[in-house]
Amino acid sequence: MSTPRRGTYTPETLLSVAVAVFNERGYDGTSMEHLSKAAGISKSSIYHHVVGKEELLRRAVSRALDGLFGILDEEAAGRGSALARVEYVTRRMVEVLTAELPYVTLLLRVRGNTRTERWAMERRRAFDQRVAELLKAAVADGDLRADVDTRLATRLVFGMVNSLVEWYRPQAGGYDRDQVADTVVRLAFDGLRARG
Amino acid sequence: MSTPRRGTYTPETLLSVAVAVFNERGYDGTSMEHLSKAAGISKSSIYHHVVGKEELLRRAVSRALDGLFGILDEEAAGRGSALARVEYVTRRMVEVLTAELPYVTLLLRVRGNTRTERWAMERRRAFDQRVAELLKAAVADGDLRADVDTRLATRLVFGMVNSLVEWYRPQAGGYDRDQVADTVVRLAFDGLRARG
Repeated sequence: MSTPRRGTYTPETLLSVAVAVFNERGYDGTSMEHLSKAAGISKSSIYHHVVGKEELLRRAVSRALDGLFGILDEEAAGRGSALARVEYVTRRMVEVLTAELPYVTLLLRVRGNTRTERWAMERRRAFDQRVAELLKAAVADGDLRADVDTRLATRLVFGMVNSLVEWYRPQAGGYDRDQVADTVVRLAFDGLRARG
Repeated sequence: MSTPRRGTYTPETLLSVAVAVFNERGYDGTSMEHLSKAAGISKSSIYHHVVGKEELLRRAVSRALDGLFGILDEEAAGRGSALARVEYVTRRMVEVLTAELPYVTLLLRVRGNTRTERWAMERRRAFDQRVAELLKAAVADGDLRADVDTRLATRLVFGMVNSLVEWYRPQAGGYDRDQVADTVVRLAFDGLRARG
């Protein structure tokens, strides 16, 4: 977490501090006091930017959701076979997750106690549904196997992709984003088995 | 959660109540008071069974870990090619996860603030390591593709399997255990793509 000097605060830097605190303490467990301490500015300075912590939550999960929904509007997500599109979307999901890691982490942990949380969960489900529809279309085209339940496959692919928030750390020096994206797409669509 | 009548408490029923409370409130957020209320028995009755909440945590995560490590001792996990063994182990992981859902959920959420939590995380890593070694051996045999990093593949397979604790609900009437196990094994080893 960066610690900007007093006076350099912008809504953007406040948001990144808030997301780190929400992810560490949980949204419910975070008070304006916690945010004020973490940001090193007074509560009234925070209120200068936002009406309360729920606005920070909304902005943070919106950033994650905008990143994910934005994929579906990209040209390659609407071009070619359903299979080509769903492979493209899967790769881009990994890229968005790793690029917006704290924001997507927060989105995935949201549990539905406030209106904003329920809204975020609903949007997340709507995104999952769009991916499920692409998978279904690819099965109908005969490009994906029909002996796998599409809804279950969707859950497992998302399980694999979303697990990134648990273990992927850009600074850990391990995997780069492309390698992770390649591996997810290979595993999901071609599997680990060697082909002779 | 079952609510046994007073006087019918056994260490086993107390454990299942404790696991439900730990999963709902988090281990750190659970007090003996919470456990006493949820179990409907006095704190001193709980102390009759255990020295404190950490003992309940240890018993609960041990049950999950014993289930997982037990797989590796099964005959089929030690017979045949590394590929056959790792496919068997993957299938059984799904079965253990779904059979011991609250216990494995707790194990996966443990974060390492107490000695018991650190021990559980270490055992969990040791299990993951055993599976990674099987995958590595199957790559060496030429049965799994060599263009995928084994450690990364292990993380993704565990990500997919462990995601079950987020969405699999035995009572939800959706998927049965065999269908989920079949789908995980197909997806991980053969992928979703149709083969002509």
